[in-house]
Formats: sequence, C-alpha cells, structure tokens
Amino acid sequence: MSNIRHALTARRADDFAAWYQEVISAADLAEESGVRGCMVIKPWGYGIWERIQRLMDDRIKATGHDNCYFPIFIPLSNFEREAEHVEGFAKEMAVVTHHRLIADENGKLIPDPAAKLEEPLVVRPTSETIIGDAMARWIQSWRDLPLLTNQWANVVRWEMRTRMFLRTSEFLWQEGHTAHENAADAKEHTLRMLEVYRACAEDDLAMPVIAGEKPENERFPGAVETWSIEAMMQDGKALQAGTSHYLGTNFAQASGIQYQNREGGQQYCHTTSWGTSTRLIGGVIMTHGDDDGLRVPPAIAPHQVVILPMLRDKPEDEALLAYCEDLRAAIAGTSTLGEKTRILLDKKPGKAAAKRWDWVRKGAPIILEVGGRDMENGTVSLLRRDRLWDANGKPDFSAPAASDATGLIPGLLEEIQQALYNEAAARRDANITRGITSLDELSAFYSGDAKYPGWAEVQWSKPTGAALDAVVEKLKALKLTVRNVPIGAEPVSGTCIFTGEPAAERIYVARAY
Amino acid sequence: MSNIRHALTARRADDFAAWYQEVISAADLAEESGVRGCMVIKPWGYGIWERIQRLMDDRIKATGHDNCYFPIFIPLSNFEREAEHVEGFAKEMAVVTHHRLIADENGKLIPDPAAKLEEPLVVRPTSETIIGDAMARWIQSWRDLPLLTNQWANVVRWEMRTRMFLRTSEFLWQEGHTAHENAADAKEHTLRMLEVYRACAEDDLAMPVIAGEKPENERFPGAVETWSIEAMMQDGKALQAGTSHYLGTNFAQASGIQYQNREGGQQYCHTTSWGTSTRLIGGVIMTHGDDDGLRVPPAIAPHQVVILPMLRDKPEDEALLAYCEDLRAAIAGTSTLGEKTRILLDKKPGKAAAKRWDWVRKGAPIILEVGGRDMENGTVSLLRRDRLWDANGKPDFSAPAASDATGLIPGLLEEIQQALYNEAAARRDANITRGITSLDELSAFYSGDAKYPGWAEVQWSKPTGAALDAVVEKLKALKLTVRNVPIGAEPVSGTCIFTGEPAAERIYVARAY
Repeated sequence: MSNIRHALTARRADDFAAWYQEVISAADLAEESGVRGCMVIKPWGYGIWERIQRLMDDRIKATGHDNCYFPIFIPLSNFEREAEHVEGFAKEMAVVTHHRLIADENGKLIPDPAAKLEEPLVVRPTSETIIGDAMARWIQSWRDLPLLTNQWANVVRWEMRTRMFLRTSEFLWQEGHTAHENAADAKEHTLRMLEVYRACAEDDLAMPVIAGEKPENERFPGAVETWSIEAMMQDGKALQAGTSHYLGTNFAQASGIQYQNREGGQQYCHTTSWGTSTRLIGGVIMTHGDDDGLRVPPAIAPHQVVILPMLRDKPEDEALLAYCEDLRAAIAGTSTLGEKTRILLDKKPGKAAAKRWDWVRKGAPIILEVGGRDMENGTVSLLRRDRLWDANGKPDFSAPAASDATGLIPGLLEEIQQALYNEAAARRDANITRGITSLDELSAFYSGDAKYPGWAEVQWSKPTGAALDAVVEKLKALKLTVRNVPIGAEPVSGTCIFTGEPAAERIYVARAY
Repeated sequence: MSNIRHALTARRADDFAAWYQEVISAADLAEESGVRGCMVIKPWGYGIWERIQRLMDDRIKATGHDNCYFPIFIPLSNFEREAEHVEGFAKEMAVVTHHRLIADENGKLIPDPAAKLEEPLVVRPTSETIIGDAMARWIQSWRDLPLLTNQWANVVRWEMRTRMFLRTSEFLWQEGHTAHENAADAKEHTLRMLEVYRACAEDDLAMPVIAGEKPENERFPGAVETWSIEAMMQDGKALQAGTSHYLGTNFAQASGIQYQNREGGQQYCHTTSWGTSTRLIGGVIMTHGDDDGLRVPPAIAPHQVVILPMLRDKPEDEALLAYCEDLRAAIAGTSTLGEKTRILLDKKPGKAAAKRWDWVRKGAPIILEVGGRDMENGTVSLLRRDRLWDANGKPDFSAPAASDATGLIPGLLEEIQQALYNEAAARRDANITRGITSLDELSAFYSGDAKYPGWAEVQWSKPTGAALDAVVEKLKALKLTVRNVPIGAEPVSGTCIFTGEPAAERIYVARAY
C-alpha cells in the first residue's frame, strides 16, 4: 500500500488531531471565523447539516413532536430558579447588557452607558427555563399532556478551548422538550428519543453507537437521569453524540408547570429534554474520514453522485456535456435509500484530475468521470469513495456501460451506506477491551504502547456520592471517563474493579472528546 | 349576511389592529414570550414558516446559491468600517459584554466583572460585515465569481415598539449575500432575487406584490440601490415584504473583498444582499385573514386537509376511524401544487363542532367532517375555508361521495390557492387610486372619510437630497411614505405633484407597517 499517494498530508495513524483539522479544510466543511470560538460552516459542511436536519426532523415529527421557536434571550432571573442548572452553565454564558452603541470621544464604538438593560439577558445555552415558562402557560389539564415540542436553533456556551464542530462557542442544534403526567411516561419518552438518536446515528450517519445511561456525575445540570449515545472515533476516543434527559419535576417546579390530574388535583409535570448538534458532523468526520479526506455516507451526502466531464475547451465538449446531461437526468430519476438520488453534473472549469481529487477529499460517495473515450465506448469511469484504491495503489475505477449505470447506482449507494457502517462497527468492536478486572490492569492497559487503546468494558458497583467522586478522580488520573452504562448489556458477575464490592453493572470507560 | 356568527370577536372593518392580534391568538400562531420584544412561535405558526422556508429555499438554491452559516456575534470594530451602515443600526443593537455570571453578596446573579470581554460583541442585526470578512478570504480571482451564498438565521434589532411577526426584537430570516465582477452583474442579480421574492410571494403565499425600487431615503444603510416587494394589507396599508440591495463596492471596500480581474489587475467586488423574514407571516395574516380567523394558502399550509371524525365515545367510533383512515391514506397518496397532499386525521378528543371552529380559525384550506351518517351514505361533509358561508349564513358544506373526494381534492386545493390570490389582487387593484395631480388632492384624499384609503399612484420628478427631504416631510405630515417606483410602469406625462417640475416616474405612496 506504500505506493498510494494519499490526498491529505496528515495521517490518522500519526497525528489524529492534525488529520481532523486537515479534513475540515480539505473537504471545505468549515473554517475559523475570526470571532472567538465561532466557526463559519461552508456549503459542503452546511449541506451535510441540512441532510442530517431533514432526516432527524422527520424522525422527531414521526414521534409526534411539533416544532416551535422560542426566544434566544433568557432573563437572568430565569436561571435563579434551578440551582444545579445555573451552577452548570453560569461559567460559560454570553451576557447582553446594552441595547445601543454610541461613538466615544475618539469616534470608537462603545456600548451606550445610557442604554443599559435593567435586567441583563443571557444568550441561551439551552432552553429549559424559557420553554418551561411557555409550558406553564400552555398546560392546564392532563388532557394537554403529553406536550411534545422541539426547536432547531443556535445556542451559545462560552467555551475556553474550542475545536471545530466538536466544541464551539456558538453551535446549531435541535432541543426537544416534553411534559408528561408522571415519571413512568416521562422516562419512557426519554428512552424513546434516545432510540430516535440511535436510529439516526446508525441508519442515517452510518455511525455505530452505544446507548446507555450516564453516571450521576455526568448528568445534565438539573437532570434526574441522563442517557447518551456514544460513538467510537478512529483514535479510539468516545464522542457523546446525543443526550436525552429525564428531568423529574425539577424544572416543572422551577417554572411552575402544573396540571390538573385525572382526579382533579394540582400536580407538577415530569419533563424531558434531549439534544443533538452540529457536533454530529465531527462524529461523521472522525468515523468515516480516511487519509484521502472525508467519506460522506450516502444518506447524508448533499450530492451522492458527482459527474465530472473531462472537458478540453474544444468543440467536442458540447457533445460530451449533452452525453453527461442525459446521464445526470437518468440517474436523477432513480431513487435510493427511500429518496430521489441526488446527483451533480459539475461543469465548473478546471482540470478533471484536480476536480476528481476535490470530490475525493469532500467525500462524494460516487464519482463518475466521463471523457471522450467513455462516450465513444458508451461507458463511464466509476469511482467508489469507500474503496478508492486498487491493489496496485491506483484509483480503482470500474467502467460500466452508461446504460447500466442508471440501474446500478441506487443499489451501489445503499451498499456504500452499509459498508461504511460495517467498517465502523467492526473497528469499534475490535477496539473494545473486555476482561479487565482491576484498576491496576486498567491503568496498565491505558499506559501501554497502544496509541489508540479504545474503550474498556468493565464492571463496577455503581458507586454514588463521595464513593463515585473517588472513582472519577482515579479515572481522571488516567484521562478516562465513564461513558455510559449500556442498555441490554450482559449480566454482571464478580466484583467492581474500583471498590472491590460486588459488581452491579457494566460500564464503558474511555478517553473522550 | 348579518345572521352569520363569525368565529372571531374583532372585525377587520372596525379595528384592524385588534383583529390582527386576535387572529394570531385564535389561530394559535404565536404569543408574547415575556422576554422584551421576543415572541414564541407556536406549532401552527412555525409550521407555516417551515413551509415558506422550504419553498423559498428551493427557489434560492435553484438560482445557484449555497447555504452557509456565519457567526451570530460580530465584533464592534466590524461596524466601524462602513459609516452609513453603523449609523443605520447602532441604535438598536444587542451588545454582549460579559461571558460569565456570578452571584453577588445577596445571591443574585450578575454579569461577572472579572469576565468582561475585551471587545464587546454585537448580536447580528444583519450579516454584511461578517460575511464580507469571509468573502475577502474566499475570493481571489474572477474565477471565484459570482460567489452566491445564503443563510437562514435569527437576527436581533432592538425595536422600541414591537408587534408580533411584523416588528420583533428577534426574528427569523434568510439573508442572501453575493459578490460579482462588476456593477452590471451585481445589479442584474439584485433584480433576479427580487423576482424570486415576487414569485414566492405571489405563487406560494398567494400574496400579490408590486416590485420596484425604493427612493433614496428608504435605502438599506450602506446600499447604492434598494428594491422591494410591497403588498397591500386589508386595511390598505403597505407591507414591505422583501428587499434586495445592490451595495456597489461599499461593503467590498469596508471588508477588503478584492479579486484579480481578467486583465490581471486588483479590483473590488460589487456585492448584493437580500432578505425575507417571519414578517411574511404577518403579510399572510393581513392578506388572507377574515372575520373567522386565518385562511392559509394551500401551498404553505402545514395541513392542507383536515379530517374530523365525529367521535361519540361509543363502539361505533372504531368503524368510523377505520373509514377516516382509509380516506386519509387515499388522499395522502395524491399530489397537488407539485407536492404530496398534506392531510391530517385529527383524532384528538373534543367535540366535533369545537374542533371544526378551531380549524376554521387556524385556516386549514379544506375541512372534511365525517360522521356516522356520512359513513352510511359513503359521503364526506366538505368545507372550503375560502368560501365558508352559504347564502343563509350557514357553513357551506358540500357532500361529495368519499370515493370522489380523492380525485376532487388536489384540484380543489389548486383552485383555493388561485382564488385567494385573485381575491387579494382584486382588492389591491380596487384600492389603488390614480389621477391625483397635486399635493392638495393627495392631502384631501388621505384626510377624507375612507377608513382604509389604500395606495395612491402618483407621478414625481424623482427629487434627491434636500428636495427629497422636503417631499418626505410633506408626506410624513400625512403619515405617508413612498413605497417604491414600480418596475414596468406606464410612461409618465405631466408634472410632479410635489415639485411642479416635469414628472420623471410613477411612485406608490401609502401608509405602511
């Protein structure tokens, strides 16, 4: 394989962080904006987000939720009502204090001291408290329940160390908020939305995840239970890709979300919230990218197929373009993965080879090159992005008849979607280590030679309070965290690797983003 | 018609402002949030916005634009570069000055004095300056032009007097930003996007508009030309429903957007920007609403057809629901206005009559009531929202066979879409007054008995500078503004009604939102 000339400079195996940055730039996904911690999401990156949004939104609507829109500004006093919540977010909030600019004596713009807000406003880091206010207005009786809402919005958390898509001061997300009659209904819904996230991650993003409950110390501020989906990146680290929270009556009490129950009494609602964000794009990069750039799963690719005519600035170009346009129209008429096939005929000027490598780096699932000879032979030169290189280190083109391509491509895209999932799942499974029975073994394992040691599945006694804090400290020394307690794990036996007490459940520990 | 019992309390003819507020609440579109100037957009209102977004986005993409996302925060210094621009927006900007909260000695949350930003950040009121920074990075050569971008985002303008959908501190919009080689290309594009807005307003929102150029005094801060589409509301006032700006090289110079031209020289780009917002929903309400609530044009109705089974809490309900579900599935399989028909089977508990009036107020285009007798007869009771009342002041139900409804409804929805447009266009045309030849006549016309006098089409000499200011002052005394100089108007003859000089062009003057 050493004779392959990869399209990127950085190698995953050598410097994963540098490779990640290079993919973002080489695939033209996003860039630093010059505004602290905020990025610009460029067309190909935003196109992937639009696809994720569309598919996730369909799933959220199919489970009975309506989209709404709530204010970006939250009065400070809203945060005073839920102590844990403000404790969790106060350190990273953008605060609006003025509503006008004026020029100072030097002509420099400053916030106008005469236009100071009586009560400062926070730019939402999450919307539990402002949506809680609305729920308190909207809910009177058990007949109004469950109340199922969702919003697509931007949120701001003033992060000190940022990284594109993974941790930015402003990010885009959806946040679902629901209210229920009782704990059982709310908990059931918390898991229903976790399952929606699992299905979207695995079926749409081709990104295998493990769904489970977060330990007490990793809960959302103010939550009673926090559940997550965790994906393994190619450097063996975990990415929390979505969370679903059962909030008990904490926020209902803070916002006064009460209802008349079936017996006529007044009662607090049990609420949930759940979110996924542009962070998912970081997950897609680190799950599917390779040393030639990004590979976008067909279900979320803005263009699933790109036709590249080998234009030569000659009169023959016209016939070639007509041939390509016929091909485009025929393929655009097919369906794959339950939707119309998305295909681009890229007529932009530029050398065909340079354009090929641009699309390789961007990760279009199928590239069809069409030159004069293809046209003569009635063929196309087809390149699958998921299997780029042949045994000789050359791009692995096949040459189906153009008339066959139309019939071939929908199935091929479905095959690529599945192949990307299978590859990621196999890698994930190969990088989960089981059988570690003590903290010493765990320590040795993560201090060993493996550059990307992956996850360890261990057993613990489910410590709480101070006992949990002690475990968290021990893990922290190894740069590890508990990711989650997987749903549907095999029963435990033996003892906790931290406390020596009888084991209560299995957990995943890992380094994480 | 006096025996009609309308579904609203307020009447358009009596108190248009009160009627507007009542429609918003009765159709469950939006509500005050409790946060100054910000509203909560509720499911039916947001559903209409999602439809507008989808249709507008398709049109924007079809004209070659890619969606991107740019930061919500803009450094103060960005605004110092374009004097007119900051002059236009400085008075209404939300300014972020701190990035952390702490509790004071009384436990009250305050912005942490130790976490003051070195340079305050403005919450974007519009994004010319921040997108200009990106364009300056992205554009090197004429080969990179035109650069065609768009973003869907929230923006904040600190309005002193707010009104839901029409003028809110935070609103949702799309803003397109493009860069071109020269003035001719940029001006052509400015008009291309104005035409996209006209087509979306008229074909999707069924809202007739007049496209034209704004006078100098109404230009976007920093623009060389501002064009608008103007719609007439039912109280005869104008609503500016979308604007498209040719920015010359003003913002290119401010942000350094330069390119190497075909001759190898460095040159500033000519840029454009254009936007439409949730204000369009206000336009839909005031164009199509009636004394029974909203009427949503089928192209933007979240549900175009609502089936209401007359449930009686009896065992027969099961057969009725099965009958309704078959009907729903059959109609859902049809297409109308180029898309799948959107239909809801509303199974929520509640009395059928109360639910009917809820959907009348919300403005679902077609309501199908189905009771036991309908099922026996194999019919449905069909109510068209655009023709609600019969000659006797009763709801004007027709009773087609259920087997015919499937074939009937797609055409009926297209007919309703057209009927709403025609009704609005006829009303608009009937409320434009021509032939006013002097300021005195104009003054008399707008001081007359007509409660909703509509627009006047007059001729003027296209004054500029101080002469224009004088005209603006005269109009202001009559609470009037120049709306725009319509594209494609008939040639002028005679004199300007303000200056007595030879007329140069036709203009519309009106009271406006």
